[in-house]
Amino acid sequence: MEGIFTTTLDLIGTFAFAISGIRLASVKQVDWFGAYIIGLVTAIGGGTARDLLLDVTPFWMLDSKYFLTTGVALLATLLFKEKLFKWRNTLFLFDAVGLGLFTIVGINKSVEAGLPFWVCIAMGTITGAIGGVIRDVLLNEVPLLLRKDIYALACVAGGTVYFACIHFNLSTSLTELIAASIVILVRVIALKFHIHLPVLHSIKTNSGDQVNKT
Amino acid sequence: MEGIFTTTLDLIGTFAFAISGIRLASVKQVDWFGAYIIGLVTAIGGGTARDLLLDVTPFWMLDSKYFLTTGVALLATLLFKEKLFKWRNTLFLFDAVGLGLFTIVGINKSVEAGLPFWVCIAMGTITGAIGGVIRDVLLNEVPLLLRKDIYALACVAGGTVYFACIHFNLSTSLTELIAASIVILVRVIALKFHIHLPVLHSIKTNSGDQVNKT
Amino acid sequence: MEGIFTTTLDLIGTFAFAISGIRLASVKQVDWFGAYIIGLVTAIGGGTARDLLLDVTPFWMLDSKYFLTTGVALLATLLFKEKLFKWRNTLFLFDAVGLGLFTIVGINKSVEAGLPFWVCIAMGTITGAIGGVIRDVLLNEVPLLLRKDIYALACVAGGTVYFACIHFNLSTSLTELIAASIVILVRVIALKFHIHLPVLHSIKTNSGDQVNKT
Repeated sequence: MEGIFTTTLDLIGTFAFAISGIRLASVKQVDWFGAYIIGLVTAIGGGTARDLLLDVTPFWMLDSKYFLTTGVALLATLLFKEKLFKWRNTLFLFDAVGLGLFTIVGINKSVEAGLPFWVCIAMGTITGAIGGVIRDVLLNEVPLLLRKDIYALACVAGGTVYFACIHFNLSTSLTELIAASIVILVRVIALKFHIHLPVLHSIKTNSGDQVNKT
Repeated sequence: MEGIFTTTLDLIGTFAFAISGIRLASVKQVDWFGAYIIGLVTAIGGGTARDLLLDVTPFWMLDSKYFLTTGVALLATLLFKEKLFKWRNTLFLFDAVGLGLFTIVGINKSVEAGLPFWVCIAMGTITGAIGGVIRDVLLNEVPLLLRKDIYALACVAGGTVYFACIHFNLSTSLTELIAASIVILVRVIALKFHIHLPVLHSIKTNSGDQVNKT
Repeated sequence: MEGIFTTTLDLIGTFAFAISGIRLASVKQVDWFGAYIIGLVTAIGGGTARDLLLDVTPFWMLDSKYFLTTGVALLATLLFKEKLFKWRNTLFLFDAVGLGLFTIVGINKSVEAGLPFWVCIAMGTITGAIGGVIRDVLLNEVPLLLRKDIYALACVAGGTVYFACIHFNLSTSLTELIAASIVILVRVIALKFHIHLPVLHSIKTNSGDQVNKT
């Protein structure tokens, strides 16, 4: 996953994640600088969590393009807000592409670190999904991840397919392409056909209150 | 703290913490996968924070039993929800045992890292209590820890007794047994007799609003 | 930034940050121990995030004065609450001094780690501002940082001036003094003259709801 093609996808993913953060921030009456910060943590939060867990230097310290791309995303929002927020399908697709790519980047980094496959899948999911969780926590919302299941689950599906491909001796680039496509497809199909996991309902206990919060 | 006995306690603690996360998640209309994630971070969040601070590999990367135990906890919830949520006292005891064990594990790891006693006590408290804090933050609640004092304070009490035992040259296993028992006892007694620390009340200032939020 | 003068400033900053945490906690009906914890994470949260990102031992593990100072802050609050919460301007100044000093400490540590200037500025900002963010998240508020822009932006301004001074070959201590003063001045002037960045407003889309939260 190197070369100009990947770099372009990486920047598209970063841009899309930053926009998703800035859009949600705009609902909460956050100022411009706050919107930039929310966009930034949405874009780099997942990779930062992964790098801390892997004990390597956080990726954004090594290249200023993530800070700059987030700045471009904020500028674009300020200049073309009306249009940008209407291009939902385009932005959703960007976001899905970003999710797919970020998941594969997370898995690759973990494979290089010699970790077992299930840790690699967890790391791919963390890379793809934690940025949005931090965004939601900062904006004081229950994370979307917990309510819209087919987000993190798409990462898990893509990660599983990744190791299935490796098992059947597919080449690295083909494996990456297939796994990223699975993440994107699962995400798109789940949204298009409104596929959800069942909700876990609480029960009423005899003593009247719903759950003992211990 | 090795051998089958400890492993069993460790799994019981993980199971109880995971259940406590899943139960709270069920109140918030989270789906199954979201409930799994909340259960998982409740169970492994404290140890992960400790390992990041100690700069060692997060414990759950080295053994898949924590992910699997959380899966069993979710399955058990789905199958036996009515019963499981009624066994409050049993679950509370599991949770207290888990808290005691996790605190001691955190202290032991910090002692091995050569840290001073007060850092070790802090690490034991972090190991025992942070998982529940992350659970509450993700579910958009003010952490229970801040409102039900005798949670983290039980860890601090157990940790203090741990170093008192070491000071009086008790054997390691006896020290661990006593310290873990103190955590569990403080927790049980505080709950049974409704013992709380006083609440810090805000004051009204002359200018009308309560506190300057700077 | 060594010697008795710096240590004093460092303790004043820690004390002021701890008080700001404890004050906000008092509005939320938190108990004494919870207030201590909120005060502590407000005071040490930023430096801890920085040290995790820099992969060095968190600073508070090496010196108990941060835990002790927070204890003094809690005691002072319990004893002199009426007075302490009225001294808003004094406390605000303490807080601004703490912010300035913490920012410089963060930049210095990052320069020593050989990081590029824009990472150093980010690290200074993280050191100064993240403690308050964690405080607000734990107390279930949208972080002040996102609403009162001239907080983190003061750190960015001070950091930028820091590297301008270095560029013009000013001595280290003069550079630190000027940069810290800039942070404090920007903060004070912004508050005094009610200077804010513009708020990013959301737009209404054709489909009725405000933003697609993907």
